[in-house]
Amino acid sequence: MSWQPNRQSDSTLQQQIVHWVIAQVERGDWVAGTKLPTQRQLAMQFEVNRSTVQQALEELKAMGILEAKIGSGVYVTDNSWHALLQQTQPNWQTYIETSIHKPNYHTIQLINEYEQRDDVIRLGTGELAPDLLPTEEMESSLRELSFQPKSLGYSSPQGNDQLRAAICHYVKKRGIEAEPQNVCIVSGALQALQLIAVGLLEQGSIVFQEQTSYLNSIHPFQSVGMQMIGVHRDNQLAQTLAQKKRKKQAVFYAIPTLHNPTGHVWTAQEKKLLYEACQASRIPIIEDDVYHDLLFEATSSPIKAMDRSGQVLYMGSVSKTLSPGLRIGWLIGPTTVIERLADIKMQTDYGSSAISQEIVLHWLQSGKYDKHIVGLRQQLQDRADFTERILHEKFKNIASWDKPKGGFYIWLKFHEPLVDKEFFLKLLQQQVLINPGYIYDPQDHHHIRLSYAYASYEELQDGLQILHDCVVDAMEK
Amino acid sequence: MSWQPNRQSDSTLQQQIVHWVIAQVERGDWVAGTKLPTQRQLAMQFEVNRSTVQQALEELKAMGILEAKIGSGVYVTDNSWHALLQQTQPNWQTYIETSIHKPNYHTIQLINEYEQRDDVIRLGTGELAPDLLPTEEMESSLRELSFQPKSLGYSSPQGNDQLRAAICHYVKKRGIEAEPQNVCIVSGALQALQLIAVGLLEQGSIVFQEQTSYLNSIHPFQSVGMQMIGVHRDNQLAQTLAQKKRKKQAVFYAIPTLHNPTGHVWTAQEKKLLYEACQASRIPIIEDDVYHDLLFEATSSPIKAMDRSGQVLYMGSVSKTLSPGLRIGWLIGPTTVIERLADIKMQTDYGSSAISQEIVLHWLQSGKYDKHIVGLRQQLQDRADFTERILHEKFKNIASWDKPKGGFYIWLKFHEPLVDKEFFLKLLQQQVLINPGYIYDPQDHHHIRLSYAYASYEELQDGLQILHDCVVDAMEK
Repeated sequence: MSWQPNRQSDSTLQQQIVHWVIAQVERGDWVAGTKLPTQRQLAMQFEVNRSTVQQALEELKAMGILEAKIGSGVYVTDNSWHALLQQTQPNWQTYIETSIHKPNYHTIQLINEYEQRDDVIRLGTGELAPDLLPTEEMESSLRELSFQPKSLGYSSPQGNDQLRAAICHYVKKRGIEAEPQNVCIVSGALQALQLIAVGLLEQGSIVFQEQTSYLNSIHPFQSVGMQMIGVHRDNQLAQTLAQKKRKKQAVFYAIPTLHNPTGHVWTAQEKKLLYEACQASRIPIIEDDVYHDLLFEATSSPIKAMDRSGQVLYMGSVSKTLSPGLRIGWLIGPTTVIERLADIKMQTDYGSSAISQEIVLHWLQSGKYDKHIVGLRQQLQDRADFTERILHEKFKNIASWDKPKGGFYIWLKFHEPLVDKEFFLKLLQQQVLINPGYIYDPQDHHHIRLSYAYASYEELQDGLQILHDCVVDAMEK
Repeated sequence: MSWQPNRQSDSTLQQQIVHWVIAQVERGDWVAGTKLPTQRQLAMQFEVNRSTVQQALEELKAMGILEAKIGSGVYVTDNSWHALLQQTQPNWQTYIETSIHKPNYHTIQLINEYEQRDDVIRLGTGELAPDLLPTEEMESSLRELSFQPKSLGYSSPQGNDQLRAAICHYVKKRGIEAEPQNVCIVSGALQALQLIAVGLLEQGSIVFQEQTSYLNSIHPFQSVGMQMIGVHRDNQLAQTLAQKKRKKQAVFYAIPTLHNPTGHVWTAQEKKLLYEACQASRIPIIEDDVYHDLLFEATSSPIKAMDRSGQVLYMGSVSKTLSPGLRIGWLIGPTTVIERLADIKMQTDYGSSAISQEIVLHWLQSGKYDKHIVGLRQQLQDRADFTERILHEKFKNIASWDKPKGGFYIWLKFHEPLVDKEFFLKLLQQQVLINPGYIYDPQDHHHIRLSYAYASYEELQDGLQILHDCVVDAMEK
């Protein structure tokens, strides 16, 4: 036992001791049940502090190679060989637990998992039903596509030039003036948020949003150290923003048209209020407008239409209208910002699917998209009416809601705060999947986001009956 | 002048003073040229420290609203109104400069930009020439595709089930055993690196790699605070890794088959050495194998094929063989890891393009892919031979290189260290775009990554002549 750690080594003393003990066990010098010298003896032999020995032994105990027997000393464990074998594998669990990105909330992981199953009634899903997607038209449009050889190559940083021009034309109808250099194609609006999070904000920046927000159910900003602050949009807004912003950088995330999950549509006055409040504190606005095409009736222009100083980053997508499977969205903003985010996008995934971009271009240019939207809007209106009839019939004594103005959702409010994880799981046991309000506002136990866009009429009927019974059951407790 | 800052406010005293001064100017109370009271007077009036006043004035000077005249005092500037107007716009440049993600290196931004231009000869591009992409076959395969309605919806977290099964079958030919639950579909191999960076590694982790590496030209790991360490693969490797790993988490990034940019192919012995060295220090390996299908002659199995303990994360892609525009790659690893990364992928972009996944599935299942690869390999071999003939003819006195074993690249080494940014820009002026060695190893000024995969035969001839003249010119200086 004449070994001593090497003080010239790059490894710490503690680590060298750990490796030396492992070597004793591996070579079979120390068999299971071997009693180790005392910490004091080891410290003397190694000529190190006793605390160094102690920490090394703790590490070896955590590995399952050593164990302490109370009042007796430290021993090589019976299954030290097994423990050693495990040590040759990377400890993936530790890797995962200590890594940077947050996992999804458990409820959302369950939603993602159960959405893959065919035997589940999906009452909350933010996706069009398969029969609302233009599957046949998509197949036939693929037959009409012809590629330039270059279109199978890597995309340019900001995306397909023609598609960007087509998007400028498309948003012009909403009063938004943009040139192709103001547009960056993204793989869905969620990616735009990711790019903004790492490409425009410093760590610790503030992301303002409404108290209830889709953004609480995902965490592109939280994962990179931003601070989320929910605010009320009232007459005090400008003051609130100025106060809470302090010296930090900040951004305001808003869904003014067919809000997710509440379905709310802001008035022109409300939009102006937000724009001016943010302007006063120089806070850029991220305007998420992915549901705009699904309005049952026309509304005022987006905030972006009143933006004269490049303060609004405007997000759109075809995921809620044409096909989420295409993974195509866009971000519109000042050229400096767009070039920066495109540069990061190149470092992230080298651009979005070129084929998907060609398909979206074809749909926009050929008029297929506009035609599809007209039919889709009517089908969603029919589904909304059908769902509301069931609600009037069964839920009017236990819940309240606003008439939907478009999109996918009814923000159903139960009279009692019964929507918790238990409630979610109980419905799941009965094959009914809901999106509980608490994923959009952790304090909220009154609401669910009811979607009339995904389940079939029959499933809506059955699912709402099960939901009803479950609510009544919870109220009686 | 009786205003004082409010000590109960959430805003700092300094910030309140700044806002108060701005208000004086905005309301026109203080016009251009107004001389401010002294710092001492202001400090007394506000009942704050003089340093607080000083900092507030500094901020206002930086905004261009105030200016100091030496020996005279502080004044409202002539263009204070203009400065104020600018203050209502978000200062995007500051946002960009202080944000988390690094910009691409300037050379790489130029490469990304010039790759979009048709009048440039691309001698370094990591992409197949348009005429090597199966454009017509892709068009005709789109006519054969039929979609399930669900295939236009959101993808499951790990990607299309059938595609994952097809990929297991495909990698089996290389000796890799995997089940669909070991596979995650990604939007290109680069995204796999991003997911690993934020989903498996803690901040400050070590990423080992070879000294010269593709990974130096992108920065998925550096951008989130990982430490890159270049190592030599020699007999001391195990020791080097153990020493440098210290107590940190670590991962080894390797491209053992047709290395990017050197084109090197590791022997079975070299692969074993790395595997065992990493195993000894419990360091997971990321094996980037996107060029495998482009080997001119068969080689030993990937490292993943010898992996019995789930230590290797294996990356593949169709970007180098079928179409980069599809944006489809995959990561193969232990289920725990794959589920974790798929969860983050759902938070990043809700999955890859479903259409692109359907297309890749169709090509793999129908045998079209294998057939395409055979032809492609031959075309690359012809291009490599052609390029080498030019090199022998023109470059043998000024450079050296290894005969390419497949893929896209010849790692051309000039006898003199003349490859710097000036050299890069000089060629760019002559419409020749190269990938200089220094983007793969900042210390390297001898190499360029010469690609025979993109430029036409004529462009190769012309471009290499210009390159030759430029080298001779630089040598004569």
